[in-house]
Amino acid sequence: MDVLLDYAELKKNPLQQQMTTSRDFSIWRYVPILPVEDPGFAKTPLHSVGWTPVYESVPLNEETGLNQLWIKDDGRNPTASFKDRASSVVVARAGEIHADVVVTASTGNAGAALAGMAAACGQKAVIFAPKTAPQAKIAQLLVFGAQVILVDGNYDQAFDLSVKASQEFGWYCRNTGYNPFTAEGKKTAAFEIWEQILLPNSNLKRELSVFVSVGDGNIISGIHKGFKDLKELGLIDYIPRIFGIQSEGSSAIANAYDAGTEEIEPVHATTLADSISVDLPRDGLRALRAATQTGGAYVKVSDDQIIQAIAALGKVGIFAEPAGATAYAGVLQASVSGLIKPEDPVVCMITGSGLKDINAAMKAVPSAPVIEPSMRALKNILDI
Amino acid sequence: MDVLLDYAELKKNPLQQQMTTSRDFSIWRYVPILPVEDPGFAKTPLHSVGWTPVYESVPLNEETGLNQLWIKDDGRNPTASFKDRASSVVVARAGEIHADVVVTASTGNAGAALAGMAAACGQKAVIFAPKTAPQAKIAQLLVFGAQVILVDGNYDQAFDLSVKASQEFGWYCRNTGYNPFTAEGKKTAAFEIWEQILLPNSNLKRELSVFVSVGDGNIISGIHKGFKDLKELGLIDYIPRIFGIQSEGSSAIANAYDAGTEEIEPVHATTLADSISVDLPRDGLRALRAATQTGGAYVKVSDDQIIQAIAALGKVGIFAEPAGATAYAGVLQASVSGLIKPEDPVVCMITGSGLKDINAAMKAVPSAPVIEPSMRALKNILDI
Repeated sequence: MDVLLDYAELKKNPLQQQMTTSRDFSIWRYVPILPVEDPGFAKTPLHSVGWTPVYESVPLNEETGLNQLWIKDDGRNPTASFKDRASSVVVARAGEIHADVVVTASTGNAGAALAGMAAACGQKAVIFAPKTAPQAKIAQLLVFGAQVILVDGNYDQAFDLSVKASQEFGWYCRNTGYNPFTAEGKKTAAFEIWEQILLPNSNLKRELSVFVSVGDGNIISGIHKGFKDLKELGLIDYIPRIFGIQSEGSSAIANAYDAGTEEIEPVHATTLADSISVDLPRDGLRALRAATQTGGAYVKVSDDQIIQAIAALGKVGIFAEPAGATAYAGVLQASVSGLIKPEDPVVCMITGSGLKDINAAMKAVPSAPVIEPSMRALKNILDI
Repeated sequence: MDVLLDYAELKKNPLQQQMTTSRDFSIWRYVPILPVEDPGFAKTPLHSVGWTPVYESVPLNEETGLNQLWIKDDGRNPTASFKDRASSVVVARAGEIHADVVVTASTGNAGAALAGMAAACGQKAVIFAPKTAPQAKIAQLLVFGAQVILVDGNYDQAFDLSVKASQEFGWYCRNTGYNPFTAEGKKTAAFEIWEQILLPNSNLKRELSVFVSVGDGNIISGIHKGFKDLKELGLIDYIPRIFGIQSEGSSAIANAYDAGTEEIEPVHATTLADSISVDLPRDGLRALRAATQTGGAYVKVSDDQIIQAIAALGKVGIFAEPAGATAYAGVLQASVSGLIKPEDPVVCMITGSGLKDINAAMKAVPSAPVIEPSMRALKNILDI
């Protein structure tokens, strides 16, 4: 199911000027091409989603061999992940249909994003999570005041129960691959790439390539949708090439891409990048087509490459969770394999903050030496 | 030691227009009244510090009984704490004096901020931390590529060793209470309060009150300095009342305030709010005067009140670490005790993100129920 915009009607308006001159530096600057009205709550975290920073870094250019690489850090969102984009639009929709309760199944970022956005506007939220979910992520859900129900089962069972509950109790269901408004929120990342990168660099000699880590596939399909909207509205000339990056341990979509089929076979996901650890991607087909229809590709990286990417990004001041660093590992991999050339302009999405998963960060770096508090001991380890 | 600005020279320039019309939404919009030049690195986390969001929340107004309460969330900075303000200015200064190495002693946010800001601009950083520092905070330092030296001793010993090393090796020392450029960075929070709250609300009937959690005292004295700069330059008519909030378990400055003395006696700090757990505040005198010279006060809150404040902020979508929530606990306490009146406009600084200390967050909320994956079990706990 998709949300359909009335492009013909929209094209009658001076859209570009309306949006690019907005003084609202959040996703709500794009209300003209969102399927919801501005929900209000202007001075809350709900209005602080999006317009995340775009970084450039000489060391990363050197490491990847690229001339133009932009890093868009969505870990800087209010609840520290890309998922705020989806949850804020879903919460806005919930307000419009006067939903009493919004529900989702989640083990992490999506739940935290729903809980945080719902809290910002006084919307009641219920989150189903497997009881094995990390305590840290559960804590974030609880602090935002969501009703959290831990299910003695796996994520799929939590998902099924959340759908049943939403049907029986009339709750509004946010689940990824179920609620089309999630992709409508996620497409705002494409609008920001347009406004922050394409418009100010209108002289790019080659088409832009966008690298996105992929789990259930809803982020990459949302970004694809955003570029399609811009193209339909005549705001961009071409749709950027979209590259999906999966962990070798969770590569259902990349497997299908490699096999040249649209049949996506489930895997038994084992990656340390928990946010993209998915057996059967719930938005797999559209996620596959985001690459195949745009001249992009799917790329697999190992957990070791993901860990190395965390360290590489950290060294220039960007702290990413494993799923966030996965896209950068993919840029490196694609550059080495020749999928992208040095002269290709590339944007790499970082989808979540490293503060979400400190254990993974510890794997990315050597431990620090312990010394007694003396200059002699210090000089020993400094080798002076 | 303080940095002195040449106010007479500065007053010749159209400062307000120069700063408030800047399109640089970071602390670097205030370069005209900072003691450093813009360091460049425009598209890095260094240029993403500051201009943190200001929130308003009806539930928090109701809970505190205030008519106008603004929450300024400095947990939204690049390394997720207020300390980025200080570290970015120190790193800029390090660049100007061509320092090879910047060094600091820290157990947490200050070190992470220095490591992150230094990484953003390729500056080498060395962080001394007690070996008992939480692994999570050490991980953040290491990911940013700082050289981390764990000292088999307490924070004071790490501090002393960092100073000795800086003297012997000619390293540039960032230590709080030692390097005056830290306060110069921290003062930018006052500039943002001016621009985000005072200028758009020029019709306030009563003076603004600013609530700040206090550990070593450098944040509150930095904010005080910022307001003094604005007053000297004729950009504000009065200096807001400044309230320092300390935990009962770490209240050296509040004790002196209560005793009506400027003699600050060290305590044996025991609060769970680790970022403000300080025996002898290294910027205590100026921190005390920030309150006494502005008609503010010092307020003590219990660790229980801090935990309750984490939950209260979380319920409106703001996730604070304990030291960050302390200021809000202080607003509540000051409102109950009559120190501030309902008609007093109040801004409450949140100095760090809750993602920095998940264990504390877990203390703030009841645990979630675990059920088998069935509608029957769900209905039981929902009491339907």
